[in-house]
Formats: sequence, C-alpha cells, structure tokens
Amino acid sequence: MTKFVYNFHEGDKSMKDLLGGKGANLAEMTRLGLPVPPGFTITTEACRTYLAHGEVPEELATEVTGALRAVEDELGRRLGDPENPLLVSVRSGAKFSMPGMMETVLNVGLNDKSVEGLARKSGDERFAWDSYRRLIQMFGKTVLDIDGDLFSDALDEMKAKLGVKGDLELTAENLKELVVVFKQIVLEATGRDFPQDPREQLDMGVEAVFRSWNTERAHIYRRRERIPHDLGTAVNICTMVFGNMGDESGTGVCFTRDPSSGDSGVYGDYLMNAQGEDVVAGIRNTLPLSALETHNKAVYDELRGIMRTLETHYKDLCDIEFTIEQGKLWMLQTRVGKRTAAAAFRVASQLIDEKLITKNEALERVTGEQLTQLMFPQFDTDANRELLTRAMAASPGAAVGKIAFDNATAISMSEAGEPVILVRRETNPEDLAGMVVAEGILTARGGKTSHAAVVARGMGKTCVCGAEELEIDMSARSLSVNGKVFKEGDEISLDGTTGEVFEGRVEVVDSPVTTYLVEGLEAGLKAAADDEDMADLVRSVDRMLKHADKVRRLRVRTNADTPEDTERALGYGAEGIGLCRTEHMFLGERRALIERVILAEHGSQERQEAMDALIPLQKNDFKQMLEIMDDKPMTVRLIDPPLHEFLPDLTELEVKVAVAEAKGETGPQLEADKTMLTAVRRMHESNPMLGLRGVRLGLSMPGLFALQIRALVEAAAELKEAGKNPLPEVMVPLVGSIRELQIVREEAEHIIAEVEDAHGLKLDIPIGCMIELPRAALTAEDLAHEADFFSFGTNDLTQTGWGFSRDDVEGSFFGLYMDEGVFGVSPFESIDKHGVGLLVEMGVEKARSTKPDIKLGVCGEHGGDPESVHFFHKTGLSYVSCSPFRVPVARLEAGRAAVMEG
Amino acid sequence: MTKFVYNFHEGDKSMKDLLGGKGANLAEMTRLGLPVPPGFTITTEACRTYLAHGEVPEELATEVTGALRAVEDELGRRLGDPENPLLVSVRSGAKFSMPGMMETVLNVGLNDKSVEGLARKSGDERFAWDSYRRLIQMFGKTVLDIDGDLFSDALDEMKAKLGVKGDLELTAENLKELVVVFKQIVLEATGRDFPQDPREQLDMGVEAVFRSWNTERAHIYRRRERIPHDLGTAVNICTMVFGNMGDESGTGVCFTRDPSSGDSGVYGDYLMNAQGEDVVAGIRNTLPLSALETHNKAVYDELRGIMRTLETHYKDLCDIEFTIEQGKLWMLQTRVGKRTAAAAFRVASQLIDEKLITKNEALERVTGEQLTQLMFPQFDTDANRELLTRAMAASPGAAVGKIAFDNATAISMSEAGEPVILVRRETNPEDLAGMVVAEGILTARGGKTSHAAVVARGMGKTCVCGAEELEIDMSARSLSVNGKVFKEGDEISLDGTTGEVFEGRVEVVDSPVTTYLVEGLEAGLKAAADDEDMADLVRSVDRMLKHADKVRRLRVRTNADTPEDTERALGYGAEGIGLCRTEHMFLGERRALIERVILAEHGSQERQEAMDALIPLQKNDFKQMLEIMDDKPMTVRLIDPPLHEFLPDLTELEVKVAVAEAKGETGPQLEADKTMLTAVRRMHESNPMLGLRGVRLGLSMPGLFALQIRALVEAAAELKEAGKNPLPEVMVPLVGSIRELQIVREEAEHIIAEVEDAHGLKLDIPIGCMIELPRAALTAEDLAHEADFFSFGTNDLTQTGWGFSRDDVEGSFFGLYMDEGVFGVSPFESIDKHGVGLLVEMGVEKARSTKPDIKLGVCGEHGGDPESVHFFHKTGLSYVSCSPFRVPVARLEAGRAAVMEG
Repeated sequence: MTKFVYNFHEGDKSMKDLLGGKGANLAEMTRLGLPVPPGFTITTEACRTYLAHGEVPEELATEVTGALRAVEDELGRRLGDPENPLLVSVRSGAKFSMPGMMETVLNVGLNDKSVEGLARKSGDERFAWDSYRRLIQMFGKTVLDIDGDLFSDALDEMKAKLGVKGDLELTAENLKELVVVFKQIVLEATGRDFPQDPREQLDMGVEAVFRSWNTERAHIYRRRERIPHDLGTAVNICTMVFGNMGDESGTGVCFTRDPSSGDSGVYGDYLMNAQGEDVVAGIRNTLPLSALETHNKAVYDELRGIMRTLETHYKDLCDIEFTIEQGKLWMLQTRVGKRTAAAAFRVASQLIDEKLITKNEALERVTGEQLTQLMFPQFDTDANRELLTRAMAASPGAAVGKIAFDNATAISMSEAGEPVILVRRETNPEDLAGMVVAEGILTARGGKTSHAAVVARGMGKTCVCGAEELEIDMSARSLSVNGKVFKEGDEISLDGTTGEVFEGRVEVVDSPVTTYLVEGLEAGLKAAADDEDMADLVRSVDRMLKHADKVRRLRVRTNADTPEDTERALGYGAEGIGLCRTEHMFLGERRALIERVILAEHGSQERQEAMDALIPLQKNDFKQMLEIMDDKPMTVRLIDPPLHEFLPDLTELEVKVAVAEAKGETGPQLEADKTMLTAVRRMHESNPMLGLRGVRLGLSMPGLFALQIRALVEAAAELKEAGKNPLPEVMVPLVGSIRELQIVREEAEHIIAEVEDAHGLKLDIPIGCMIELPRAALTAEDLAHEADFFSFGTNDLTQTGWGFSRDDVEGSFFGLYMDEGVFGVSPFESIDKHGVGLLVEMGVEKARSTKPDIKLGVCGEHGGDPESVHFFHKTGLSYVSCSPFRVPVARLEAGRAAVMEG
Repeated sequence: MTKFVYNFHEGDKSMKDLLGGKGANLAEMTRLGLPVPPGFTITTEACRTYLAHGEVPEELATEVTGALRAVEDELGRRLGDPENPLLVSVRSGAKFSMPGMMETVLNVGLNDKSVEGLARKSGDERFAWDSYRRLIQMFGKTVLDIDGDLFSDALDEMKAKLGVKGDLELTAENLKELVVVFKQIVLEATGRDFPQDPREQLDMGVEAVFRSWNTERAHIYRRRERIPHDLGTAVNICTMVFGNMGDESGTGVCFTRDPSSGDSGVYGDYLMNAQGEDVVAGIRNTLPLSALETHNKAVYDELRGIMRTLETHYKDLCDIEFTIEQGKLWMLQTRVGKRTAAAAFRVASQLIDEKLITKNEALERVTGEQLTQLMFPQFDTDANRELLTRAMAASPGAAVGKIAFDNATAISMSEAGEPVILVRRETNPEDLAGMVVAEGILTARGGKTSHAAVVARGMGKTCVCGAEELEIDMSARSLSVNGKVFKEGDEISLDGTTGEVFEGRVEVVDSPVTTYLVEGLEAGLKAAADDEDMADLVRSVDRMLKHADKVRRLRVRTNADTPEDTERALGYGAEGIGLCRTEHMFLGERRALIERVILAEHGSQERQEAMDALIPLQKNDFKQMLEIMDDKPMTVRLIDPPLHEFLPDLTELEVKVAVAEAKGETGPQLEADKTMLTAVRRMHESNPMLGLRGVRLGLSMPGLFALQIRALVEAAAELKEAGKNPLPEVMVPLVGSIRELQIVREEAEHIIAEVEDAHGLKLDIPIGCMIELPRAALTAEDLAHEADFFSFGTNDLTQTGWGFSRDDVEGSFFGLYMDEGVFGVSPFESIDKHGVGLLVEMGVEKARSTKPDIKLGVCGEHGGDPESVHFFHKTGLSYVSCSPFRVPVARLEAGRAAVMEG
C-alpha cells in the first residue's frame, strides 16, 4: 500500500519528489542528529491523489493519526492538550521552492482551552493569546478563504481605539478581546464557529495546503519558472517552537556564504523575541548574525558548528532557518541556497579550492542561464527610473538610445555617433539594416519568437516586443505611450531582461564578464578594475568555462550571417559556423537584382544576367566571412525563403492599386504597380511556410542555387590561392527526399570541379542538408547516401512536427497551452524531447546506420538552449550551432552535459 | 560478376525486372518449346549502368559477342554474312509496356554486300533491297537522329517521279536507287557513311534503345502511367523472320479472348505478304484470323494450338504477335493482354468458370481503377463533339448541363429541373451548395487537389480543373474560351476522365454497373436490358465484389457530411462513416450565428446564446445521418478549420474599405465593414494551415466543441428513445499531445453523462482523435491512454511530414518533382509509404503497444486509393474511410490486398 506519511526520522534528502524540498531536508537534518523539532511529512503523492479525486484519501487520515501519536509520545505532549498543548505548524513544501506561493498555518492546536494551558506553561499570557489570534487570523484567511482585510482592519481598529501603534503594545486583555472579534468574523463569514477541535484544524490546514497548489498565482509562478503542474506539494507538520518567548528566544535566517556576492564567510540576520514572519515582515530591524555571538555565545557556536556540518554535508552553500526558544536552538529548515549568478560561479570556484568538490561537480553548480545573466549589461537599479510600459522580455540586456522609426534614420543617427533604439510596429527582414546599427529594438507587436525577437537574440541585441500600449504614428513620426508622446530622437531605455521600457536615459552598468569572454582573461580582469569581487568572478567564470571546454564532447558552432557576427562569435569561442543564412545577401542594394530574377521570364537572358551580377557580390560576402573563420568550418545554407518575400505584400499592393484606380489616377507608377501586382498574385501562397521554398525553390528556378554555390566556391578558391585555409560547407535547406539532394549535389559537384579546374587547385567542400522536415528525419538512412553531413533544423521540425507555425501560434494559444499543461515551456524555446526530439533521435540513428561517422549538428534557437544542449549531447550529435551571444552558454552547458551524464 | 546478356533459353517469365516484359515472355515461350526465332536479351541492368555512366559497359560488348555467336551457331548463319546473312531486330522491352514510346531497328546486319546474299538466298531481289532501305531509314531516324521526313520525302519524290502510288510498285532497281539516296542523306546529315559493319549497326542500335529511355515523350508517358523512371529498358536481339517473303508469308496479331468486350473465343487480324509495321500502319486491310484457316489450315491449327497452350500456361488472356515465313509459323511476342475494364471483369469470371484460376486469383486480375471506369457514365465517343479546351481531369465522369456562375443561379436552374455545370474561377466552401446541385464543376484555376477537385471527387461529381484558357467575366456573366463566348444558361459538356470540355450537349451513356452497385444485382441486370455483354459484366462485377467482401480484413467506411452522402455511401456498401466533417454545419443560414460567436466577446452572454442556437440545428443534422446509418458506427470530427475562414477574406475587405474611403464614402455599411476588418485583421494568420484550428480552436473557444458534442449526443439519445441503434463516435482533430485530448475527453464525458441522466438511458460513445500530426503518430502510445480509437488523417500527415501544403504546391512544383523523379505520383494521391507511411506504421505499433485492441482507421483521400488501401491492409488498420463513390473500389482492393498478401 502507498505510504502517505513519513516521520522526519524516516526520510532523507534524496526524497524530494515525494517529501518536497523542505520535508526531505528536515528529514536529512534529523538524520544528521541536528536539533529539528519532531514532526512528519505528508507526501506529494497524497496531494496528487487529493487533487485527482477532490477528496482526502481515507488512508491519509489514519496515517496522520499514527504519525501524530508518535510525535506526541516523543514529546510527552498532546495536540491541543488543555494543560500542556502540543502546537504544530502546517507548511507546504513542493519539490521546487515556490516562495510566497503556497500556504502556511502556524500554532495549530490552540483553542479556547489550550490557549490557557499555553499561557500557564509558557508563563506568558500575552504570548499565548497573541499566538491564538494569529492562528485564527491565518486559519481564517488561508483555510477558510475569508478576506484577510477583515482581520487586519479589526486589528487596526483596536489599535486606533487604544491609541497604540505597534502590535507589541497590545496587552493580553486586548488580545483576548481581539480573539472574540476574530472568531465573530469567522462565524459571520462562514456560518460556523472557528473549529475548536485541534485535529479538525490540522486536517483542514492540510487540505488547504493541497488546494493552494492549484491557485492561479501558483499556476502563473510555475509557468514562469518552468515547474510542471503535476508535481503536487508535500505538507510538513512540525512541532511549534517559539522565537517570541522572551529575550532568550529569537529567530533568524543565515547562509553559509554570501548568496548575493558569493563572498566566503557566513552571512545572516536574526531578531530576538520574534517569530519568523516578523523577520520577513521587516517590522523591526534585524541584527547581523555576528551579534548573536555576544548575546549567546553557546547558541552562536552551536549554530556555526551546524552551518559547517551542513555545508560539508551538502557540499554547497546552505540556506538555514533557525529559532531559539528560551535559549534552545532549533533548526526549522535548510536547503541548498539560491544565489545570484555571480555567487554561483564564485562559490563553485571556492568549493574547488576548499577541496569540497571536484571541478566536475563544480560545473554542475553553475548554469548557462546564470552565465547569460552575467553577460548582459544591466541598468543601475539605484538610478532614478520612470517606467513607461512593460512588455515581452524578448532578448535580454540594457539598451539606451534615441528613437528611430526606420532604417534610414537609424543609420544616419548611428553614423552621427548616436546610440539608436529602433521602434517599429513589428519588424521584417527589410529592417535588418536598422537593427544592425541599433542598440535595442522595441516593437508594438509580436511575441518571443517574432522576427524582431529571434533576430535580436541572434545578434545579442536588447529587445522588448509586443508593447501593445505603444502607438506609433508614422506620419507624425511620434510614439505615444499611456499619454506621453515621444518624437524621433527622444531618448528611451529598454531592459530586455525584464521587458521594461523607461523614459529617458537610465545608467547602464557594463559587464567585465563579457569583456573577458570576448577579449580574454586579462582584458576581463582589467575591466573589473578595483572591484575584487568582480575580478574573482571573472576568474571563476574562466575556470568553469575552461573546464567545460576540456570535458565537453559537443563542438560549439555559431549561426552567423555577416562578418560582424562571425567576428563576435569567434571571440565567444565558436569553433565554426553551423549556419550562415544567405537571404540577406539578396537585400539592400541587391534587391533590384533579385526582383529582376523573379520577374524575368523562365530561362531568359535577362534572368541569367541578373543572377550573374549577384555572383561577385555574394562571393565577396562569403570571402570576408571565410577569411575570419579561417581554418574553421563554415556551413552555408542556400537560399530558403519563398521568393515572394522579396516582393511587396499582396494586400498592401492590392489596396494601393485599387485606391489609385478608384481615384482615377493613371501614369507609369500605377502601371508598374499593376505589373508587380500580377507577379505578386501569381506567386501568392496561402501557407508560405509550406510552399515553394528551400530546395524546392532551388530546383524550380534553375541557376539560383548555382549562383550561390559558385560564389562560395570561388571565394574559397581565391582564399586558398592566397594561402588561407577556407573550410566552406554547402547546406541544402528543406530536403524531404534523396532525389532533391542528388540533383543539387550533382550541380554543386559540377561547379566545384569547374572552379577547381579554373584555379588549378583542389577544394574539399562537403555537401549536406538540413533535417528540418519529419520526412527527412524518417528517411535519414536514405539521405545519408548523398550527404556528407546533416544539420537538424529543430525550429522547422517543431513547426511541422506539431503542425503549428511560430508566427501564428505563439501569441494565440501558447499561453492557454502552458496554463493547461499541454507544455511547460514553449517547444520553440526548449526542444520537445518526447515528440520532436524523437525525430532527432531517429534521424541520428538512421543516418549513422548508413554512415557511422557522418557529422551531425543542430542549428537554430535550440542550439543555445541549456536543456536542449543536454538533449543533443545525449543524442550523440557532433555539434550545436547557436547565435554568437549564446556560444559561451552552449560551451558551458555542453561541458555540464558531459559531466552530468555519468 | 553481373550478367548483362541472357539467351532466350536462359530466362523465364518471372524475370521481367531484368529482361523486360518482351524478353521474359520470349524466353518463356522458348522454354515452352514454341517456335521462337533464336535470340537474346540485354538486361535492364545494362541499361541502368549505361544511363548512370553515359557509356556502354565494356563487359556488355563481350557478352553480346558470346550470345551472338551462340545464335549464329544454332542457325548456321553469321550476322551480315555476304552469302547467307543472319539479320536481327533490335527492340526495346521495358518491364512495363510503353507502346510507341521506344525504339526498334529491324534488318540489322544488312549492308552493301549482304543485301546481295539476301537477294540470292531469298530468291527475291526486290525484297532484299526493300529490307535494306528500310534498315537505313529506320537506323537513320532512330539511331542517328536524322529527321525522318528526309527519308520519307525522298521516297515520295521517287514515287512521284515514277508516277506510282504504293511502295509495292517500286521495283528492285528503284529500291537500289533509293538506297543510294538514303545513304547520301545519312552522309550529309552525320558527316559519315552509313555503317557497313553489321556489329557496329547492332551496337549502335542497342545504345539508341538505351538512350530512348530518357526521351521527353518517354518521361511524359511514364509519369502519366506511374511507371518509375529508374527501371531502364531491356533490349531484345532476335533473328529476323520475314512475313513479306511472298504469298506463303504473313504476319498478325491475335488475342486468346476479345480484349475489348471480354467475349470468349479467339480474336485477331493478319495480313499475308507483309511485315509487322504494315499491319500497324493500316496500309492494307487486314483479314480476320479465321480467314487463315482456309488459307493455310496447318499453320492455323498450329497457331490455335499455341494460343491454347499459352492461355493455359499464363492462365489469362494472351496477346500474341506472329509471323509466317514461307509457310513456317514463328512466335515473335506474347504477353498477358491489356484489356478494357469490362473485359477484365468478364474474363476473370470466365476463367473461374473454366477452372483455370481460383476466385482468389481472379480477384488479382481486376483492379479498383477498372471498377472506377465502369462506374462513371461516359460520353458516347461516336457522337459529334466540338472540343473547347482540355485541362486537369480532376474527377471522372461525363456531365452535361447549363452554365451557372454562382450558387443562386445553380440552385434556381436545378430547381427548374435543368442540369447545371457550375463554372467558377476556383471554388471554396461557400460554393458547396452550388456544387451539390451541379452535374459537374469546371474551374479556371487549381490542380487535382484543389478544393473543387477534392470535393467533387468526394461527391462523385464530374470535375475539370485548372482550365486556364477559360476567361470568366462575372459582370457580363459570360465565359470565353479561345474566342468563343458562352452565356449563363448555355450548354457545355465535361469529360472528367479525360479533362475535355465540349461545346453544347454530348450524349452520355449510363453505366448499369453503377445501378447494380447502388440498387443491387437485379436492378443492374435490368439496366443492362438486352445487352448480354453488359449483363455478363454486371454479374462478373458482382461476383468479384462479393468475393472481395468475403476475404477482406479491412472494413470500409465512408466520408460523408450530409444525409445525401450517407444514403449514397450505404448503397455503395459502406459499413459506417469514418469521417463526418462538421464545418458545413456552420454555413448557409447559420453563418450569421457563427459570425456572432466569432465576433462576440470572450465569455459573453451573446456568444453563449449564438452557440446555444446552433445546438438544435446541428442536432437535427446529426439525427438525420445517424438514422440512415442506424446500427453502423458514425465518426464525427469536431470543427477543424480556423474560424477566420467563416469571415470575409482579408485582402478583399482591405481593398473594399480602402476604396470606399478613397471615394469619400460614409455610412453604416462602411462602418460595418471597418468593424469586420478589425476582427479579420486580428484573426489573420500567415499560415492558417499551421494556426489556430482543430483542437487548439476547441480549447481556445470554450463552448464550441461542447455545442457540437451536445448536439451529437442528444441526437443519439433521441434516436435511442425511438428504438434505433445510433452508434456515434466523437473525433477530436489535430491533436498533438495527450493533454489536449484529456481536456476534450473530460468535457465530452461530462456532456454524455448529463444527457444520459436527462434521458434516463445509457449511451456508449467512443471518444478518439485524428492522428494527423507527426507528433501524434510519434507519441501514439501516450495518446492511446485517452483514446478509444484513432483515425489517421493522412492528408494532413502528408502536409506536415513533407512540409508542403496541398493548396500551394501541387500547381507549383509537383510537375517538376514528378519529372525529376522525386516522386512517381503525388503523395496526396497515393500514400508515401516510405516516409509518411512510416509514421502510420509507427503510430499503429505504438497505439497497439498501449491498447492492443484499439480501433484504427484512416480517413481522407488515401482511403480510396488502391495502392494506399493495400498499404493500410498490410499496416493492420481496422478500416479505411473514403468518399462514397470510392467505397466499392476500396472494398475490391481490400479484398485483393487480402488475397495478394500470401
């Protein structure tokens, strides 16, 4: 039979799934012989059973009776005994900490009779009645769902009537009166009396904790923190100890190291004659832990000893809650302490030095997410800031600049040395030039995977998206937010980590960690200047990354489309380019050429000329990038998007032409628009994502892929002649069948041979394809015959595997789906291992069944996502490719994956 | 080592892959001891090797030498011997017959010297020189690629000069002269003399046959006939025998039964003193085979004996080519004869009666495609017809009617008793009402899987699509085709089997087979009236279908959305409804209600009221269908398409509003349009196929699925109360994750319980889902926990598996892809077994791993496609569901699959 209840003596720290974090650690401390008040834990499974059936399982009630009696026997007191009452706390405790989200009831066991017993036993009548009114208040609010204001209003009213300010000024008599008032509130709100049966109080408390798992705020919290909704919470029933039983009592929180800076040496606060909630509430000023040494050296020494024991035992920074009841120290909670990103790296490094953990273990203690936080410049939170609006935190960082509404303005401002914030309703590939020069991007529409967001993350630019309160008036060239109006050139500040938009300039703090990553250790230390903590942090990050590089099996490449990206990625440690997109090579001034290609007749001289004109331009693009990436592989993806993306939008053009005609306009512009409209109509697709793109486009428009391949191969040949070692790779997008790949491969090999002959040299240029369609993954054993490498395009695989398009669904039903638990995190952010991941696994297995040594990578957003990196490591890929900014994260996580797989 | 050449003694009829059809059958006849001129076959593998490397493999040349010497030794003559020359024919022979597509060279071995030998040996100088000029002409044209007109012009010129009409009037001298002229043509066209080396003639002939595999017309033919492009052709080298060696020589073609009507009794034509090409060319009138009996009884009897031998041996109708050379009978070819659909059924039935084959074998001899042909009414080909244009044959049949350009006109014409042809640029769901009343549908745009085509096939209506020469002028309500103008109400005729459109009325011949299928054997025989052949056909079809029903393992259901469809499908033998789409239940008069649902505020009273109003309407729809399908399962798919499909088109509305505003218009209509525009903009999706549809829509708009489920369940409850046995099943579309299904299931179970309580009865309503996303197939073992059945939606699976949308790609690159061999047939027509099929197989296996007995079906176009039916049979599905008209085809093919799997 399922066991629903564990005495603290029965569990240990490994049992977090069942006992929750708090319960498992209370059990662990009990096992270590530390002074933990006796108690027991009701399992998460009991909670899940309750939530599934809507009622408390009968077995739970009987097991609680047994556990409660054991505690009573241990202490020689009974719950709610009128003479010598045992009081207990009822606290939630899920596997993952959810601070403030869930319910707690203290002092359970008090009633009209036992309050007298407590008064006698403690010799403090005021304490006893204060404890009782606290129980009624907490119980009323959290268990009985009574509006908490009713209680606090009554308290305030009494204080006002008595003319006192603090709660402490209320006498026992006052509190007795308050208890009467509170009980009346309960009766009126619920139609029944406050329960006098201590066991009823306990049972109701437990049920309330169970219920609190499903409150809306708990849902929202879990969604934000990526905690699954189906875990449930445990409930800890723990003997009450009181820090408010006079001056030899107290309560506090401490850390075995500083969780904020990561400094070594203990750190904590306490308050004498107080209960835990008083410390949190900040009613009185807390004292530093060191003050306890003078106040009560014995307790202080005991506590320091326990802290040392815990840190040695947990081999990590511990977070501890304690209470001193009349000179006796009690441990109420411990856990591996949450810490800032900086503290994580510094503490990990210290623990290596102290020989508490190995480098491998240390690597497990730091995360890519923490590293990301350390890389972004941040706003000085001490600065004066005027919040304008808050929207989607699409790409982290802090950006300050002048508003520009279009590329031209952004570029001219930037050339004038002004930092720019590009503000657009939404962005599209045409806005790339403006985005490149901008410090940050702010859009009124679009979600976390809108064009703006994806490109900004790729560039490592700050971006805030979907700020719906923004109204952009392009004719007036102004922006209004909640009534405030800004002109082009006005300054604003974006916090891409929080999604906040501020008026004017907010001071930005630079990150020496980034300086280190890009320019090396020395430069990083120099940037840290006199800040010793920062210098130590830079050294710690360096140590962790070096170790990650040493142990990782996954290579880390980058997605880079321009020389600037390439340069940056190289600094971040990229070992090659896994994805060089080539669409932008048709934009800007070259747009006229691609338009001519599109509009010219099939097989015409005109089309060929336009294509030929593109070759030297693209060759130059490739040459620059290959030169920077010298000696490292660079995978070039042939043009992917449908060609109509290079033409005007159908609807806009229809409107333009119709309006011009309605107005009776004539002339060459209208005629040109009409000609264009015919082409746009002809090429229009209902579902462009599923249309004429990728290899289909390449096969349908002979010469298109060829021009790109020729440009790339000639670039490589010229560099090789110049003594360089270019390592380009040709990647064919959207392949679904071996025949497609065969045809392109044949053409590519022909071009390579031609260029080799012309230059009198040999080039070794691998030809491979994306695996971004389910069919490609399912038939990878076929495709492998024609491919030298595969790169999994998990963005598209996610789109086709789930049958939803990023652009359309993220803003539409993803919120609902996360709330309803369809997925815990967007499958575009972190790979859906069970579904899309299975396609990757099958693809890998099938590919290797044909070519055991085939190089397999992944490119796209998932390549820089920590969880996904671990998955790709397990799957046995050769490399991941991610945006330059994510390269260090991927390096770190690849190392972590290697040490964690054991 | 690979063997490239097989003597006729070495092969047999099972070796068609390697020897081609002709070669394998020549070998088989040789094995049977029939009089086949000695020879050998060069394999298809040699051809494939040649095509892959662009040159004849060296080994082939040496093997040909060996095989040739063996033949020479057998006959005691040498190829091109000046005294007693052996002449050979070089003929292509692929696995599948491709009549007229590929090359043949006769009389190889003749040159300036051997022609004299032939003359002497045959004692017929004219014959020898005629054979020589034929060689030069054929060789020049097919091997040397010389324009054939040059030769025929020269021949005509000579005849004109001599004042003679027929070739036979030319003397030996004339022909000698002609040979000189022909050789001069060869010299001028190629710069070298006609090759005198017989072996060179042979080798060049073989290479020409290889090359002919890749001509454009061969490609087009194979594409049409679904013959893979990578098979290659074999080449047969066969000793020449001459039917033109005087009056005791001749040549002919015969069949062991009539391939046209299927009548038993031999059938054939012959021509004395002639070569095979003369029979085909129709220069002289052929004689019926029976005439041979009087002319040369011995040969006739020998031939009849051989025919009997062959039919007994092949157990099927054989098609035979023979030649009589100076009184000696030679067999030049045999094969299982092509036959009409009617003959296929009748012959199969006869062969059962004659105890030549079993019923199972007979079932293998008829196909679903043949049955389809028998079902459609057809135009009387004897009638006078004026062809207007030819376009895509989208849905077969013959339809005659008056042109209607919209629903209203179509309906009023139809109500007036006029047959209607609905003519539209393209159709969409709004045109359904017009399509329902129309005899046929003609569109100017769209391919074989456009809306019009798919719906028409579903309804069994004739449809011709993508007739680009059509110009429809809606304002003038006229249609012009190649200069001819038609008004609404003018008559036209559509042949959906050929894609032809005719002016005016063409007479239509009805099919008694269809009468039989819908109304039963007696009615079918009555419809056949005095036509004994037709009556026999009806009985034969009945016999085959009954046997198929007996042996098949797959159940056959139908896709039906209306009572009419349901009724029709039941007639065709449907065993249930596998897919009842419900979208149309929101159209027509109910459109106002769904618009209110869409436009109303989330959670508003207004929305709920509109939904509530839809319940009784849909209940009535369901009730009618359930009543017809009494006692048989009916799977209802909840609403699938995105809701914006029920609103106006974005572009059209943008134009309308912009134009109205440009004209300065005001008023309530514009305001209404602007309000609508806001909603349409809000709901617009870039890729609707990958957007808010299916279960996502159901979850996003609470109440929408509920209203449909309630309507269905109440319909079932009311029927059950009335003593019927309704068997509805609820199917959730576009499920990708178990949680989606769970939520809908919970809601559905709640509604079912409510209705059960209200009516005081129990309903057993299975709840399942479509498997139409790769992720659903990949996680079917999960989904199976919440599903009572699955139905594979292989249309959508094809779209997501390949990443292309039917609407967009079929007209765009599918032609190219079929030409390039990416696929032999559209994966929307016949399931892509290797890729999408693998998802089905995985889905089946995973589903059964959780629930071994789970009911698994398929619905969509593939359910009625013969090849796909075989695949689904192998995969172990429980049923296929297809359009009503395809039900008999699916029944037949399911039976064939069962007998063919052994």
